[in-house]
Amino acid sequence: MADDLQKGLDDVLVAESSLSYIDGDAGLLAYRGYDIKDLAREASYEEVLYLLWRGELPDRDALDEFATELAAERAVDESVITTLDGLAAADERPMAALRTAVSMLSASDPEESDPDDLDAALRKGRRIAAKVPTVLAAYDRLRNGQEPVEPREDLGYAANFLYMLDGEEPDDVAAETFDMALILHADHGLNASTFTGMVIASTLADTYSAVTGGVSALAGSLHGGANQDVMETLLELDESEKDPTDWIRDAIDNDRRIPGWGHRVYNVKDPRAEILTEKSAELGENSGEKKWYDYAATIEEYLTEEEQFPEKGLAPNVDFYSGTVYYQLGIDLDMYTPIFAMSRVGGWVGHVLEYQEDNRLIRPRARYVGPENREFVPIDDR
Amino acid sequence: MADDLQKGLDDVLVAESSLSYIDGDAGLLAYRGYDIKDLAREASYEEVLYLLWRGELPDRDALDEFATELAAERAVDESVITTLDGLAAADERPMAALRTAVSMLSASDPEESDPDDLDAALRKGRRIAAKVPTVLAAYDRLRNGQEPVEPREDLGYAANFLYMLDGEEPDDVAAETFDMALILHADHGLNASTFTGMVIASTLADTYSAVTGGVSALAGSLHGGANQDVMETLLELDESEKDPTDWIRDAIDNDRRIPGWGHRVYNVKDPRAEILTEKSAELGENSGEKKWYDYAATIEEYLTEEEQFPEKGLAPNVDFYSGTVYYQLGIDLDMYTPIFAMSRVGGWVGHVLEYQEDNRLIRPRARYVGPENREFVPIDDR
Ligand SMILES: CC(C)(COP(=O)(O)OP(=O)(O)OC[C@H]1O[C@@H](n2cnc3c(N)ncnc32)[C@H](O)[C@@H]1OP(=O)(O)O)[C@@H](O)C(=O)NCCC(=O)NCCS
Ligand SMILES: CC(C)(COP(=O)(O)OP(=O)(O)OC[C@H]1O[C@@H](n2cnc3c(N)ncnc32)[C@H](O)[C@@H]1OP(=O)(O)O)[C@@H](O)C(=O)NCCC(=O)NCCS
Repeated sequence: MADDLQKGLDDVLVAESSLSYIDGDAGLLAYRGYDIKDLAREASYEEVLYLLWRGELPDRDALDEFATELAAERAVDESVITTLDGLAAADERPMAALRTAVSMLSASDPEESDPDDLDAALRKGRRIAAKVPTVLAAYDRLRNGQEPVEPREDLGYAANFLYMLDGEEPDDVAAETFDMALILHADHGLNASTFTGMVIASTLADTYSAVTGGVSALAGSLHGGANQDVMETLLELDESEKDPTDWIRDAIDNDRRIPGWGHRVYNVKDPRAEILTEKSAELGENSGEKKWYDYAATIEEYLTEEEQFPEKGLAPNVDFYSGTVYYQLGIDLDMYTPIFAMSRVGGWVGHVLEYQEDNRLIRPRARYVGPENREFVPIDDR
Repeated sequence: MADDLQKGLDDVLVAESSLSYIDGDAGLLAYRGYDIKDLAREASYEEVLYLLWRGELPDRDALDEFATELAAERAVDESVITTLDGLAAADERPMAALRTAVSMLSASDPEESDPDDLDAALRKGRRIAAKVPTVLAAYDRLRNGQEPVEPREDLGYAANFLYMLDGEEPDDVAAETFDMALILHADHGLNASTFTGMVIASTLADTYSAVTGGVSALAGSLHGGANQDVMETLLELDESEKDPTDWIRDAIDNDRRIPGWGHRVYNVKDPRAEILTEKSAELGENSGEKKWYDYAATIEEYLTEEEQFPEKGLAPNVDFYSGTVYYQLGIDLDMYTPIFAMSRVGGWVGHVLEYQEDNRLIRPRARYVGPENREFVPIDDR
């Protein structure tokens, strides 16, 4: 047994993968060899899902077929809606409601699960990807006292979600912006939620179990939860009516951890954050309300110039500007992390199936540091 | 970045722990320094939970207080029963139903979750441990068309579960045997389900998320699912009407993986399996029906003597005799893994809280082996 503790598993290679490549020093991210910047600008989320799961970009016919299959599976069983309604009445957080709903979906899956049938496992993954937007939009409406809106098969993945959320078809800018955000969040190597799904799958548990685990891990504030924390931070700044530079200086003086900053893998600005920075500025310019972008940009400038965060390897991560984008699309704060989950289903399913193709149980060790050889004394003699 | 792939994380130390100590060569397991054999024979499951979570064995007063708190939290919200009823109607597997129910329980938890409040996290763990038996017994009854039985606060953890399952108080032998089985399964270092819970918790997600992940991982046939597989194997042997030695010889000739054999950590017979071997024999002798024990013992002898499994480091693990014990207690086969989960909540909660006390995000890497620098071609030009 190796003697050194590898707490956090920094830089430990636990698998081979051909899904996504990250260069944390150059600030580069590619899915299956395609630069994320090209995919974000030119592809659709459905195209990216196809790419992640099958390894190649589809041609028009293949994409149409895939998107049609995906759209056909959007509806969820009535029992899921009933359970969501109960959770809404109990004021459950959306990430917890999603965790429960994804777990419940297995009951209405038409196929038996079989660890040797990876094609069936992929179809299960496709069903989960199809239904997560339906679950989330229904939940958001139910807790606001509204009836869920049935999914529409004629709309794309992103547009259909915004439609189910609002009951109205989104305009092109909103649909395209949201689609781009989904693409940016679809995969990111062995982040904590993806790795969770892999550990679960390595026992030969099914796709629903793996994805339920992914949702569970993404909720944490060191992972997907950060996008909501960023927006809460900007709202706090806004309410304080302080100068943004003074505000962030105080926050640093008080040793606050700044959400949306720092990353285990990147030492420079995350390429996803770069794209979202532009998008956030653009939305602000279009609407005439640039303050959210301006707050974030001022914080970035201060941390970069005055606090020398780049020298410490700290830079904005994907979450730092995504909140301001969702906010400008009119989405509730506590839906940001669930939206991250909606997109990341792509990566979870992709990595889980890739790992199961050449599976090995993931089972590490702990260094024992407790007492040894204690003598048991029966309770009445203690 | 280290260059070598550590697939499966064999022997990789990812944390320090003072919960359980395993010596895989000597066949030794201890919780907090106490030998599992002493605990199994002399303690109760409640005592062991207390030990795992607080580090010391309780005296009588402390145990009474703890057991009373635990018993007071057994009831589950009606909405959970309604959801379970729907899952039963859809013929969902009990492990999947448990995964959904544990996730749902967070909605009725009276405390907000706060990553900085580990005492609150422990109370959440206690509530989960209290309610899992109620969920499982209710589910088993609902799918058999019976009304759930309300928990009774005056019965111990093990006896109350058997009571809720049957509607009748178990006799002492059954209650004690079951209590012992729970003790044996309560913790086992960083097995895949415990590690899953830790990865989830390392993002600062809450106790419900971590335990939901644990249930998800335990379902797999390389982990908790094996106890059911063992009993199915013995039933298959029984139905074949073959001589058990011929049967196992054929199975080996057909390259079958024998459930209940082999372990990442043990190279000799698992000490838990030793205790369960005795218990299985004893139950058979008492009832006059020794065939299940005999089948297992014959397989063990054949694999040990003829197939030289010990030289390959393969020996019976905890699951090899547990199935025959549960079978003799009259429990349905697909409840064996959920019962393992019921017990392992102790270890999951213990390890998760221990890790969060000195938390570090668990985030490994993959070695990228896919295509590089591919040029994006718009869909209509492909
Ligand atoms: C993402 C994150 C968990 C990566 O953490 P990690 O690789 O484990 O790094 P550590 O937590 O060990 O941090 C390394 C150092 O940077 C500091 N640091 C890291 N992120 C920081 C942040 N957001 N604000 C201020 N300081 C930060 C730490 O305090 C630590 O300083 P020290 O060495 O003086 O103790 C961490 O950067 C973080 O918590 N960020 C905020 C949450 C977030 O945005 N998460 C989403 C990621 S996509
Ligand atoms: C528990 C288990 C997953 C540990 O696996 P691991 O540490 O990853 O070991 P491997 O799967 O790499 O097995 C090592 C070798 O032993 C063999 N082996 C392991 N378990 C075996 C079993 N139960 N029956 C037959 N052969 C087995 C493997 O085929 C492999 O042989 P090889 O080196 O010739 O390929 C494995 O022993 C197993 O699948 N057991 C059956 C399921 C079970 O009982 N699980 C519950 C564990 S508590």
